[in-house]
Amino acid sequence: MKYRLLAALICFPILVNIAQAVEISDQTGECLMCHNAVTPGIVADWKKSLHAKVTMSEALRKPKRERRVSVAQAPDNSADVVVGCAECHTINPEDHQDTFDHNDHQVHIVVTPKDCAGCHMVETEQYSQNIMSQAYGNLKNNPLYHSLMDSINGVQSFENMQTSLAPADEATNADSCFYCHGTKVEVKGMASRDTEMGEMEFPVLTGWPNQGVGRINPDGSKGACTPCHPRHQFSIEVARKPAACIGCHKGPDVPAYQVYNVSKHGNIYSAVGKDWDFKAVPWVLGRDFTAPTCATCHISQIVTEDGEVVAERSHQLTDRLPFRLFGLIYAHPFPKSPDTTIIRNKAGLPLPTELTGEPVTEYLIDENEQQKRLKTMQKICLACHSQQWVAGHFTRLKHTIEYTNRMTLTATRIMLTAWEKGAAKGLTQNDSIFNESIEKKWVAQWLFFANSTRFASAMAGADYGVFANGRWFMSKNIQEMADWLEFKLKMMEDKKDD
Amino acid sequence: MKYRLLAALICFPILVNIAQAVEISDQTGECLMCHNAVTPGIVADWKKSLHAKVTMSEALRKPKRERRVSVAQAPDNSADVVVGCAECHTINPEDHQDTFDHNDHQVHIVVTPKDCAGCHMVETEQYSQNIMSQAYGNLKNNPLYHSLMDSINGVQSFENMQTSLAPADEATNADSCFYCHGTKVEVKGMASRDTEMGEMEFPVLTGWPNQGVGRINPDGSKGACTPCHPRHQFSIEVARKPAACIGCHKGPDVPAYQVYNVSKHGNIYSAVGKDWDFKAVPWVLGRDFTAPTCATCHISQIVTEDGEVVAERSHQLTDRLPFRLFGLIYAHPFPKSPDTTIIRNKAGLPLPTELTGEPVTEYLIDENEQQKRLKTMQKICLACHSQQWVAGHFTRLKHTIEYTNRMTLTATRIMLTAWEKGAAKGLTQNDSIFNESIEKKWVAQWLFFANSTRFASAMAGADYGVFANGRWFMSKNIQEMADWLEFKLKMMEDKKDD
Amino acid sequence: MKYRLLAALICFPILVNIAQAVEISDQTGECLMCHNAVTPGIVADWKKSLHAKVTMSEALRKPKRERRVSVAQAPDNSADVVVGCAECHTINPEDHQDTFDHNDHQVHIVVTPKDCAGCHMVETEQYSQNIMSQAYGNLKNNPLYHSLMDSINGVQSFENMQTSLAPADEATNADSCFYCHGTKVEVKGMASRDTEMGEMEFPVLTGWPNQGVGRINPDGSKGACTPCHPRHQFSIEVARKPAACIGCHKGPDVPAYQVYNVSKHGNIYSAVGKDWDFKAVPWVLGRDFTAPTCATCHISQIVTEDGEVVAERSHQLTDRLPFRLFGLIYAHPFPKSPDTTIIRNKAGLPLPTELTGEPVTEYLIDENEQQKRLKTMQKICLACHSQQWVAGHFTRLKHTIEYTNRMTLTATRIMLTAWEKGAAKGLTQNDSIFNESIEKKWVAQWLFFANSTRFASAMAGADYGVFANGRWFMSKNIQEMADWLEFKLKMMEDKKDD
Repeated sequence: MKYRLLAALICFPILVNIAQAVEISDQTGECLMCHNAVTPGIVADWKKSLHAKVTMSEALRKPKRERRVSVAQAPDNSADVVVGCAECHTINPEDHQDTFDHNDHQVHIVVTPKDCAGCHMVETEQYSQNIMSQAYGNLKNNPLYHSLMDSINGVQSFENMQTSLAPADEATNADSCFYCHGTKVEVKGMASRDTEMGEMEFPVLTGWPNQGVGRINPDGSKGACTPCHPRHQFSIEVARKPAACIGCHKGPDVPAYQVYNVSKHGNIYSAVGKDWDFKAVPWVLGRDFTAPTCATCHISQIVTEDGEVVAERSHQLTDRLPFRLFGLIYAHPFPKSPDTTIIRNKAGLPLPTELTGEPVTEYLIDENEQQKRLKTMQKICLACHSQQWVAGHFTRLKHTIEYTNRMTLTATRIMLTAWEKGAAKGLTQNDSIFNESIEKKWVAQWLFFANSTRFASAMAGADYGVFANGRWFMSKNIQEMADWLEFKLKMMEDKKDD
Repeated sequence: MKYRLLAALICFPILVNIAQAVEISDQTGECLMCHNAVTPGIVADWKKSLHAKVTMSEALRKPKRERRVSVAQAPDNSADVVVGCAECHTINPEDHQDTFDHNDHQVHIVVTPKDCAGCHMVETEQYSQNIMSQAYGNLKNNPLYHSLMDSINGVQSFENMQTSLAPADEATNADSCFYCHGTKVEVKGMASRDTEMGEMEFPVLTGWPNQGVGRINPDGSKGACTPCHPRHQFSIEVARKPAACIGCHKGPDVPAYQVYNVSKHGNIYSAVGKDWDFKAVPWVLGRDFTAPTCATCHISQIVTEDGEVVAERSHQLTDRLPFRLFGLIYAHPFPKSPDTTIIRNKAGLPLPTELTGEPVTEYLIDENEQQKRLKTMQKICLACHSQQWVAGHFTRLKHTIEYTNRMTLTATRIMLTAWEKGAAKGLTQNDSIFNESIEKKWVAQWLFFANSTRFASAMAGADYGVFANGRWFMSKNIQEMADWLEFKLKMMEDKKDD
Repeated sequence: MKYRLLAALICFPILVNIAQAVEISDQTGECLMCHNAVTPGIVADWKKSLHAKVTMSEALRKPKRERRVSVAQAPDNSADVVVGCAECHTINPEDHQDTFDHNDHQVHIVVTPKDCAGCHMVETEQYSQNIMSQAYGNLKNNPLYHSLMDSINGVQSFENMQTSLAPADEATNADSCFYCHGTKVEVKGMASRDTEMGEMEFPVLTGWPNQGVGRINPDGSKGACTPCHPRHQFSIEVARKPAACIGCHKGPDVPAYQVYNVSKHGNIYSAVGKDWDFKAVPWVLGRDFTAPTCATCHISQIVTEDGEVVAERSHQLTDRLPFRLFGLIYAHPFPKSPDTTIIRNKAGLPLPTELTGEPVTEYLIDENEQQKRLKTMQKICLACHSQQWVAGHFTRLKHTIEYTNRMTLTATRIMLTAWEKGAAKGLTQNDSIFNESIEKKWVAQWLFFANSTRFASAMAGADYGVFANGRWFMSKNIQEMADWLEFKLKMMEDKKDD
């Protein structure tokens, strides 16, 4: 094929240059011949990665705590080559609906956690138990959350003095909620495309591009590693820095990054984080860093200078999370299963609490498990804080959970009254509970204000929990809801009188 | 004059120190004698600049792609001296209304793009075709935008149960809209001032200080280079980093920086940007940086390691912008002319669309030009992303433009109904369409929420486009506008009945 | 005691390692024996501090301008050891209510400004005159501010169509307002706790943990040094970087950090601050930094390369602050005393202005003092800006203060009308003036929008003062308040008619 000769002529010097430094597979070598010119940014990025510099044989010779791989041996025939294009994009070809013939190679477009598991098995298995891996289905297949999504993303119209709402379309959802939650990526036929190397055929993907944490992949697997380890450096440094979480956790619904930013931990990171070592494995507390980032508390393997293990690495982030602070009407103990679509409260709603806040205990972890997770988290705190400090901190968080749940309950009571008196249309009228203005105020109470207040408490970023998006807004919102209800009922009454 | 001797005594050692390293002009040497003591920060900053280290002769000896200057020869007699105080502050004296006698030198205070053109001609010409250079007039001389500015900046009063609005004054506008858009800087006489060097005379400037992108300068030129290349380092590093844009593009009206911040590109920059080379010219993709900043996509000259040109440098940023996503009621194709005051829609309003969204095509670029600009931009994307990825991204952006325009149209329909029924006063009542509470809700729909949603889509910072200031708020705002209208009409009706 | 042997066995090698480098006291050596294992993060952090590397004898040998200590001699017997655990945690044992017997040492938990004064006397004395040191009492003991706190932090209920408000509890206040203002830390008995070293007794502290700027300490002193100099590095670098202020000054009530962030100063810091020297003492303008951070203008000792003093270090930040821009209803000259609870206006309210804005001059600094403070601040500006630039900047700030005060007055007039007509309950009804929805809109007018506009003006971050949280919101808020009042009065009237 003509493109090969052309590519060889263009790329040969660069290829030689790459090949000298490391042992790359023949397959990857062929990829690079063209892609060095076609997607030079990807190749350059990969060249900076550990994947481009270390073979599995070398990686496996490291002491266990220093390893970044978690299998006992390399996938077939790849032990002595670096991890190049082909090693990831041609693994497990039979599983991949998106495998296609690309210059005589069986290549797939979407590299999935199942592919990464060839070398990072433990992390992949942990992640599959993490609630994030179910983020697509937990939103898509929960009728209540789905209707929340519709109420936000659906096109509204205004005619004859009435608004109406169309269901949200896939393109909007993909550019909105599913951007983080993940899309469903499927192959819908093949398409011919004019490339720098001539006319070529490629699979056509739905929901593409996407790097959501719960993406449904063309090999049937769930999730993606790229939200935190961006292509094609897959850098541990990027994943350990707080910006890794900002893509999904900055909005007022989950203001983790913003709270961290105003916390003492974030302050120290901002000021002297430049001097820390974000690449060291294991990550040595006090030597490599002097204040935690998100990863420190929630994922990473942490050891002391003496080699004592403070925390084991876990990509099941829920291992360190006793409570679910956000996303639902009330904070509650973490659900047992990462698949939350199975949950039903007494009223039959797919919610982990009743509308009035009582937890649906059978689906939630018990007190013992909560304590276990709390202790795992607190062991990290205790490396730098006294027992009394840590106990005081978590006592306040617990108090704040109760406080915010009560303030949400008050807002819910106003809402229930509005539904009952017909000031708004709710479940009994078979209407969405999220689409009217008073309902949206109610949603803001828990989805933004109560959540933000809890995050501010949990991560010691108090400034965020008062005026930024916290207690001030909870207190104001209740007053505005009560006002609205009074005005509305008066208007309804007057209309009846007319 | 006594100050000279004094200055010479004080500054001589420092001057010798500077003079040894570089060849500075006699004139600049005289400036430094005093200003090293009077404004030490400016002198120190300048000493760190390339201007203080390189002569035009040296600059012109570089290969073309490595040059930061774009003329064939230096301005008169300055080829072999570094670019010091005098080289900029005494150039083109006859053009400058603010030229004054300063210790026998004809100095002007405001250095303008026309002055910079002595060495950076191409950039200055490109910038003059950039819509930013017209930012002052486009706001000041468009009666509709002017009334928006008045409605925000004017002092309101409350008497006899009525609010009233005074027109905005110049000082407030200068501290507000014109801070970014630019002020009109004119000389209003001379004033005597007591300085460290004795009593001296200086021109009195209106609208000063200002570094707005469309500043009207005392030499009649438009714009300023300093918003992006701050005095007196004029560093390319500063201009290439995302913070360069934050001064004008962080508010909810143009949340470019915030969207970048939550995008994968921003995430990578935050984490590993410290390792990139922001000074290299040309800027080599993959080698000097591994994810784009604002400048990468919108301005910079980008080449690959093989020397292939991915993008030509252009200070006419609109060269890479097919659509205008912000600032107006509806997103629309970019205007042909940077001077937008010439635009009139069918209704006679100075708007690039009708109030109901139809674009006023005669003033806007056509489909061909849009495609051309899109391709210029996409060529940069394609260096790191596949064709399908890029196509998918822009398909979504197009969808999001349509979606947000429809949501704005719905808000506009409520607004039109309010005006029609007399619930608010609009054009037919010869009243501002921006000054009442319902009108301000309408403005928020497009100026903040629709804009933010489009930016989030355009720059792949989806988190910002849902709950931060995007779709959630569009959907809520429509409900609140409809509620308000219902309440207001009922009240009007009741009053009629009374 | 058994723990000692255990500790010695575990920690000996590390201790030797530390001891070789520096001279540590026997007492501190004993602390480290256990704490190296028990709180390894603290020890590692301290080891990176200057405290762990320099003795007072060495510190005192430096020329005065280079010193970081401000006493003539070291506290008893500590001149030739580095400043370790014991030097701070066992100083002034008799003053400390929280002193307890800890393995035969009289240790206290909370290190206070009075303890730090042993070496940093001048800074401690200055800080005690700073309004921050009174932040606890100024909030707690001002009945009006206290009721604002209650209105935000108190739990609200909804029953019989009415909301009601309970007073805020201490735990919520500690996790909210007092987090920054400081809590009252007192000893409430002793408690036994199971530690890695066996069962031990510790004092039980109220309001702990806390690092608020006005903390009431167990030795009776006020304030904390740790909000800006975080434990246990106490780094000057951290304190000089803008993130030091973010913990308390990011919310919309005091958006200093956000305004800085969009200012040209912040832009330059973001881009090239990485190249600056944040550890140099004295801090040399132009050499060590080329744009100010918060500390530069508000606290630090600044000199030129020639050694000229631009600003003397002052931990009484008010030395450079003529106006109080935030926190109160109207901007006004700074109060004379850091204790603001003594202030009463003509109406008898504990406010520095009347409700209609007139300043209560007897409690506020006069014009002379304002000018003096302004000049102190401006001397820093003038190092990099011309006189005209600086004069123009402050003229605009003054104008913006007047403008925002007028916009607040208009909102207040609507509020006064609402109280007068019974649309809301205020002082005459003996009700909080902060708890109803219209009152909360009024609070937002000054506490968020007017404040933010002033900050944006003061720090040249104009973008923040228009659409982010400034003029746009002031103008909108007035319209919404007027609308609400009209609706409410109509409803009241209709009810009367019923």
